Amino acid sequence: MGQTLGCYLGFFCLVVPLTVADWNILNQKSHNGLKISLKNYCKSWRLNVELHNIRDFEVVPEECSEYIGKYVRSTQYQVDSEIAIEECLVYLSTSCNLKKDGRDAWIFDIDDTLLSTVPFYKNYQYGAKRLNLTALEEWMDKAKAPALDHSLRLFNDLKSRGIQIILVSSRREHLRSATIDNLVKVGYHGWSSLILRDSANEFVSVEKYKSDVRRELIKDGYRIWGIVGDQYSSIEGLPSAKRVFKLPNPMYYVA
Amino acid sequence: MGQTLGCYLGFFCLVVPLTVADWNILNQKSHNGLKISLKNYCKSWRLNVELHNIRDFEVVPEECSEYIGKYVRSTQYQVDSEIAIEECLVYLSTSCNLKKDGRDAWIFDIDDTLLSTVPFYKNYQYGAKRLNLTALEEWMDKAKAPALDHSLRLFNDLKSRGIQIILVSSRREHLRSATIDNLVKVGYHGWSSLILRDSANEFVSVEKYKSDVRRELIKDGYRIWGIVGDQYSSIEGLPSAKRVFKLPNPMYYVA
Repeated sequence: MGQTLGCYLGFFCLVVPLTVADWNILNQKSHNGLKISLKNYCKSWRLNVELHNIRDFEVVPEECSEYIGKYVRSTQYQVDSEIAIEECLVYLSTSCNLKKDGRDAWIFDIDDTLLSTVPFYKNYQYGAKRLNLTALEEWMDKAKAPALDHSLRLFNDLKSRGIQIILVSSRREHLRSATIDNLVKVGYHGWSSLILRDSANEFVSVEKYKSDVRRELIKDGYRIWGIVGDQYSSIEGLPSAKRVFKLPNPMYYVA
Repeated sequence: MGQTLGCYLGFFCLVVPLTVADWNILNQKSHNGLKISLKNYCKSWRLNVELHNIRDFEVVPEECSEYIGKYVRSTQYQVDSEIAIEECLVYLSTSCNLKKDGRDAWIFDIDDTLLSTVPFYKNYQYGAKRLNLTALEEWMDKAKAPALDHSLRLFNDLKSRGIQIILVSSRREHLRSATIDNLVKVGYHGWSSLILRDSANEFVSVEKYKSDVRRELIKDGYRIWGIVGDQYSSIEGLPSAKRVFKLPNPMYYVA
C-alpha cells in the first residue's frame, strides 16, 4: 500500500509514494542536519504530543498513520497505559489519606480512558483522516467500544476503597443511554455521577467545561484525589485535583 | 556485562543476572497478565516519566540503565528535542505578538536544556547509580558540558527577535563563573539575566524557587512568552508563562 509523505514542519518534504518496506531505509535530513528515518520522526511526533509540546493538531501527519496505527494496537500501548494505572495505585496506597465520608472522589474521562475508540479510528487512518463527528457519534451510539482493561482494574479498585467515581466526558447528552449501555456491558458499574455536555456548555472549551465541573464538585464538598484522562484538556485548568494522570493517546487532540 | 533485574512495581521480580542479549528474549507477565519484554517495560517507564505520571524517582530502575543510556546517546533523543524546539519556533512565528519594548522575555533552564549532563551521567549508569552531588558540582565546575544544538538554535533565534533571555537554574551561586564560562565556550552569549540559587532560596522546592523568580519578573513588567525546561519543576507552578515546552530527560527527577 502506498504512503505519501507530506511536508510537515520542514522535516519531510517529499511527495513520492513510499511503501512500508521503505520506512527503514528512508533517510532524510532534518532542519538541523540530523539524518533521520521516518520512524524517528513519527516516534518524536508522538512523544511531543504526549509532552504537550505539539498542540491543536487536526489530524495525525499522514506519513505517521501507519506507525500510530501499529502503536495503538501494540503491547507497548497497553504497557504504557498499565504503568500509568500502576502509578495511580501507588499514589492511592501511599499518599491519599481518605476520609471515607462519601466525599472522596476520583474523575475519569470516558473515551480512550475507560473505553477505546481505536476500532472507530481504524477506519479513519488512526487519526490521519479528518474526523466526521456524525460518524463518530453514530459509532458511539452502537455502544460497542471495548474497555481499556487497566482502567477497569483501577475503577474497581477505587470502588473497593469507597471512593466516589465521577465520569466527566465531552460526549453529548443525547448519547447518555448508549454510553451507560456501553460502560455496563464491558464491566463498569457503580459510578456516582456521569456528566455529559449539554447545550449550556456546548460552546465553551473542553478544558473550561471540565474545570467548571470540578469547581461545582469542590463546592459540593468533594475532595478530588485524582483525574485520569487521555487529553490535556481533561487534566489541565483550575481548580484541579491533587494529582492528575495522563494516558497516552496519539490519535486526536481535544482543545 | 551482567544486568540484574530488580523488583519494580511488580513488573519484574527476578534476581537472575541477565546479559544484554537476553533482553529480546526476556518475557515476563505484568500484573495484568500482559506478556512484556524488558524493553517494553523500560520504554513505558520512560514515557510515563515524560507524562509526569511517574514522579519523585531517586534513580532510574537499574534494569533500564542500559536502555536509558542508549536513548540519551541516540539520534532519537536528538530528534525528540529538535521537534520540541521546532514547536517553540512555530509558536513564536504564529502566536507571539511581541511588543519589542525590552520586556518580551523567554526563560531557559540550563542543565539538559542548554547544556548536556549526559557525559557526567555516563559514569552514574545514566541515572541508575545514586547521585553524588559533590561529584556533579565538581564536574560542572570544569565547564565542559556540551551544548544541546537545537536549544542553541532557538536561543539565537530568540535573540534575533529582540526577546530578553533569562536563564533560571537550580545550580548554586558558587558555580556562577564556571557556568558563564561553559555557556560562552559552547556558543551561548547575550542573555539578559542568569539566576542561580543562593542561600535565601536553597531550601525551598525548585518549583517554588522558579515560580518566585517568575513572579518577580512579571512584577518588573516582563511578559514571559515561553519556558523551555527538561523538568516539570521548571515549567509547573504559578505564575507561569504563556506557553511551556518540555524537553525529554529520563535520567533524573528534580522536585
